[in-house]
Amino acid sequence: MPSFDIIAFDADDTLWHNERLYAAAQDRFVELLARYHEPEWIREQLFQTEMRNLQHFGYGIKAFALSMIETAVELTEGRICGEDIQALVDVAKGMLTAEVELLPHVAETIPQLAARHRLIVITKGDLLDQEGKVARSGLAGYFAHVEVVSEKTAASYAALLARLGVAAERLVMVGNSLRSDILPVLELGGWAVHIPYALTWAHEVAEPPPAGLPGYHQIEHMGQLLELLAKIEHR
Amino acid sequence: MPSFDIIAFDADDTLWHNERLYAAAQDRFVELLARYHEPEWIREQLFQTEMRNLQHFGYGIKAFALSMIETAVELTEGRICGEDIQALVDVAKGMLTAEVELLPHVAETIPQLAARHRLIVITKGDLLDQEGKVARSGLAGYFAHVEVVSEKTAASYAALLARLGVAAERLVMVGNSLRSDILPVLELGGWAVHIPYALTWAHEVAEPPPAGLPGYHQIEHMGQLLELLAKIEHR
Repeated sequence: MPSFDIIAFDADDTLWHNERLYAAAQDRFVELLARYHEPEWIREQLFQTEMRNLQHFGYGIKAFALSMIETAVELTEGRICGEDIQALVDVAKGMLTAEVELLPHVAETIPQLAARHRLIVITKGDLLDQEGKVARSGLAGYFAHVEVVSEKTAASYAALLARLGVAAERLVMVGNSLRSDILPVLELGGWAVHIPYALTWAHEVAEPPPAGLPGYHQIEHMGQLLELLAKIEHR
Repeated sequence: MPSFDIIAFDADDTLWHNERLYAAAQDRFVELLARYHEPEWIREQLFQTEMRNLQHFGYGIKAFALSMIETAVELTEGRICGEDIQALVDVAKGMLTAEVELLPHVAETIPQLAARHRLIVITKGDLLDQEGKVARSGLAGYFAHVEVVSEKTAASYAALLARLGVAAERLVMVGNSLRSDILPVLELGGWAVHIPYALTWAHEVAEPPPAGLPGYHQIEHMGQLLELLAKIEHR
């Protein structure tokens, strides 16, 4: 019998590439404002605007688009032209309809896991966008549920687990963000598997948990997950 | 014993005023573009942009803001100034932080219902915004759960009910939108209580269900809900 009731996956940069969409959008943003400011200053101001707007706009592409627009107006002292504003809206639409590119080993691993475990997705961002990506990923049938939360904190995980009727120690959370996927789950006494992604948004950077903490595991790619889970279950 | 397992409420324009925030924002939008076009043309174009963007942006204030910005660029042929664009972003922020004004009788009725029923909120829109409004409404403690869905269709209600382990005939849905709150729930065999609101977004307009349809009730305000539910339960 499996030791886990639920294996939960973060979505962006865990199941599929995402941060590089933002990186490309930022490059385009820097390009649009290149005649006004230095690239590094533009990036820094955009990040500051995003952080300031987080409380109002939350996560996701629409929030990012509004922060790009606000930063563009600010950094050009209002001189930004309508065409460039429309280009930013179009960048957002491009991100929202971008092809979903699965990370290595995801396409084989998820079906194998789904055969013996209940899998769910726990993610932040825009509800419609995340549902759309799950649908376009071809993986929708393997997940019992997609939960979009406004923040990934110990409290929000605890509320979700209570609603699902699952104890924290019977949850495995798999994700790329120490801050959002790993630390809060460990805090509750759950299992957390960290799969680092090449790019990390500055907002998601966090210190790793103390070495040797029970429940915490790190692997290099999704292809190592089955073996890791088998090892944990048969200890 | 109550006949219902769950009483679910739509949020915007059912528990608190909402559409008038959009109406005020649209007035401001018309004002900003007044020197370019006639008010009716501006409103019509904004609505068309919203409908076109729905598939990408979904519902909620951030989507509305991006559609306002896109329409403004279009209707001014790019001549809109940065200051006016920022004014539109600020309109959105004002909407996201607006005071939550409960509709009449909501403040007394919800606590009384919560004493003997399990209450939840089922709403569309931005997750963070809807959670924030529930928190600011002072009613958070009465709701077992707030579910934000990307669309309110028979399929999305069915999926939610399955997850909650509740049969449709033991659900009462209370809301102001025939299209989103009433018709899909009746289709599943649930109970639906329509409380019309003074303003209805054109997208939500629908034909009422056939007269005499079992499960369908209409009341004028939330203060009549307790009596209606008592009548249904003691038939």
